[in-house]
Amino acid sequence: MSGAPIEIEVGLGARCYPIKIGSGLLEDAAYWCDAVRGRHVLIVSDEHVAPLHAARVQEALLGCGVDAPIETLSAGEAHKNLDAAARVFDALADLGATRDACVIALGGGAIGDIAGFAAACWMRGIDFIQMPTTLLAMVDASVGGKTGVDHAAGKNLIGAFHQPRAVIADLDTLATLPEREFIAGFAEVIKTACIGDADFFAWLESRADALLARDAAALTHAIATCCRCKAGIVMRDERETGERALLNFGHSFGHAIEAEAGYGALLHGEAVAIGMLLAARLSVRLGMSNDGDTQRLRALLRAFGLPAGCPPHLEADALLARMRLDKKNRADARRLILWRGIGRAEIVAGVEDAEVLAALRPEPTEAGGG
Amino acid sequence: MSGAPIEIEVGLGARCYPIKIGSGLLEDAAYWCDAVRGRHVLIVSDEHVAPLHAARVQEALLGCGVDAPIETLSAGEAHKNLDAAARVFDALADLGATRDACVIALGGGAIGDIAGFAAACWMRGIDFIQMPTTLLAMVDASVGGKTGVDHAAGKNLIGAFHQPRAVIADLDTLATLPEREFIAGFAEVIKTACIGDADFFAWLESRADALLARDAAALTHAIATCCRCKAGIVMRDERETGERALLNFGHSFGHAIEAEAGYGALLHGEAVAIGMLLAARLSVRLGMSNDGDTQRLRALLRAFGLPAGCPPHLEADALLARMRLDKKNRADARRLILWRGIGRAEIVAGVEDAEVLAALRPEPTEAGGG
Repeated sequence: MSGAPIEIEVGLGARCYPIKIGSGLLEDAAYWCDAVRGRHVLIVSDEHVAPLHAARVQEALLGCGVDAPIETLSAGEAHKNLDAAARVFDALADLGATRDACVIALGGGAIGDIAGFAAACWMRGIDFIQMPTTLLAMVDASVGGKTGVDHAAGKNLIGAFHQPRAVIADLDTLATLPEREFIAGFAEVIKTACIGDADFFAWLESRADALLARDAAALTHAIATCCRCKAGIVMRDERETGERALLNFGHSFGHAIEAEAGYGALLHGEAVAIGMLLAARLSVRLGMSNDGDTQRLRALLRAFGLPAGCPPHLEADALLARMRLDKKNRADARRLILWRGIGRAEIVAGVEDAEVLAALRPEPTEAGGG
Repeated sequence: MSGAPIEIEVGLGARCYPIKIGSGLLEDAAYWCDAVRGRHVLIVSDEHVAPLHAARVQEALLGCGVDAPIETLSAGEAHKNLDAAARVFDALADLGATRDACVIALGGGAIGDIAGFAAACWMRGIDFIQMPTTLLAMVDASVGGKTGVDHAAGKNLIGAFHQPRAVIADLDTLATLPEREFIAGFAEVIKTACIGDADFFAWLESRADALLARDAAALTHAIATCCRCKAGIVMRDERETGERALLNFGHSFGHAIEAEAGYGALLHGEAVAIGMLLAARLSVRLGMSNDGDTQRLRALLRAFGLPAGCPPHLEADALLARMRLDKKNRADARRLILWRGIGRAEIVAGVEDAEVLAALRPEPTEAGGG
């Protein structure tokens, strides 16, 4: 694929760490094993990714004198729960892992979330390295230090803020990524453009074909742009007291849609794609934005093969009920991330339920809004 | 009991919080309910403490307009595990707890650890208030922000740093505390004196009788002295990168003894009492301290009715093996907290196994050391 790796530094004081993006990185341990401090390393992966990539990472570590076992978890968001974290704790105990141990999260966002959370809790915090193997994880989940597992009552309700020691994004792993998952990753890429980068939005409109053809140069640019944007926001607002909430554009709706459809029916990225469109429609209803930007967003989602409308069998009332427990909300106020147009997302409080319901209902009602 | 409550401020920047010590505090919600920010409050207690005190806290909160359910967990360190934390997560979900929710930990150290850990993880961190009802929890566990649960492989292996919003120590709760538990709490009081306060050590020697008679003024002074000492250390070293490790004086040995005896056979304080004596003996062996201070420590432990020797059925080799996984150790070095005499604890690295084993063996070998 492309040439030399790109490195992006995420500066959080003493917890500064690099994001490395390139080809052939997993087997090049000399390039990243400085992030491993001790003798105890545990590779956490899932049943889909482990057979494809885990042996390469394990061999690379052996070359550095570290014998790292592999803990293989069940794949998929449905298994991202406290039991999965408990399995990682057990594996760390079997390893006799001490405070300078390191967990390597090799897989998609769910593996990064589980392994990162386990690393955050083991002895109140040991190191971990993100090795994202999906586009979604490369552009979003692996950056920012949010870790956690789901509870029956909602996504990511149990978690911790824990920054990785390094993020190693090997583009070669995308070659084996199933098409549907690959496409779903572009939802977060498009989100990055939506919230703060109109130029990047236009670039995506022009380069959709190259990206879908997995062109290495185009992918590297897209991933690096997303990581830089997210790293910048995280540096300014690590604990999500303000600006960081913008990264949830499309997610309040998306989480509700994902849960109501039943975890696994829609991929996270697909739900976020629909959620972004609903946020755009609500923004029009509230007079914040014009319909032209909503249509450009819809067209871009379609260009990438992403869904651009709510599945008709989902009830608006049920979705609203789901949004009530959304963890972005405080007890006293409902906050939503809306936009004033492409590249200009905003946090909006106090939106009336009736407006949200109208946006959640099928298209024809949209004309009556704004 | 005594007069006006004593307040100690623990200053950790934005996360500054008060420790309030006095009588009749649990029912005086007006005195502490400013620490509750939202409408969702969950009282977490155990089967022993809940019947004694939970209704008073619940009523006090009702007076402030908050309807707080009680989650009653099994009592004892044996139940301080991930399953207990999961029960708190379920209770928070049932409550529909949002980001401004608050968990009240009403009980001993185990309840504070479990409830604090659950609060640390729920939505990546909600508020919690410590209401310690044991002497041990008042003087040690409730201050400092260490939370967590045990794993089969060791104590507190799964946890988080999470500072409470307030610590409310109601002396009245000590009146119903069983004698053995009350006495065990003095191990941590004595530890505070051992690590950095020779004057307090002498005061304890002179006031042992009054303290054992549960004299309110003496107890208030002892608790406040311990909280001030610990708060000072935590403020200077929250994440235990240095000085805070001194608070583990007696604990590396103590944790091994507690585990090897089987959780529940010895109370934590009893194990720590033995551990401190072993640390003192090892200090003599290594030429760091003289035997006179060891004998004063032994006499003080005996004055409080605490054990002052290792149970003879515990094997030195087995205890050493237990200490190997102690979380205070790094992969590359064994660190122990020893002392140069009363009030002068020190972190010591690289102590030989043979020396540790000798200190762990029954008394007669002691004469050959130092």
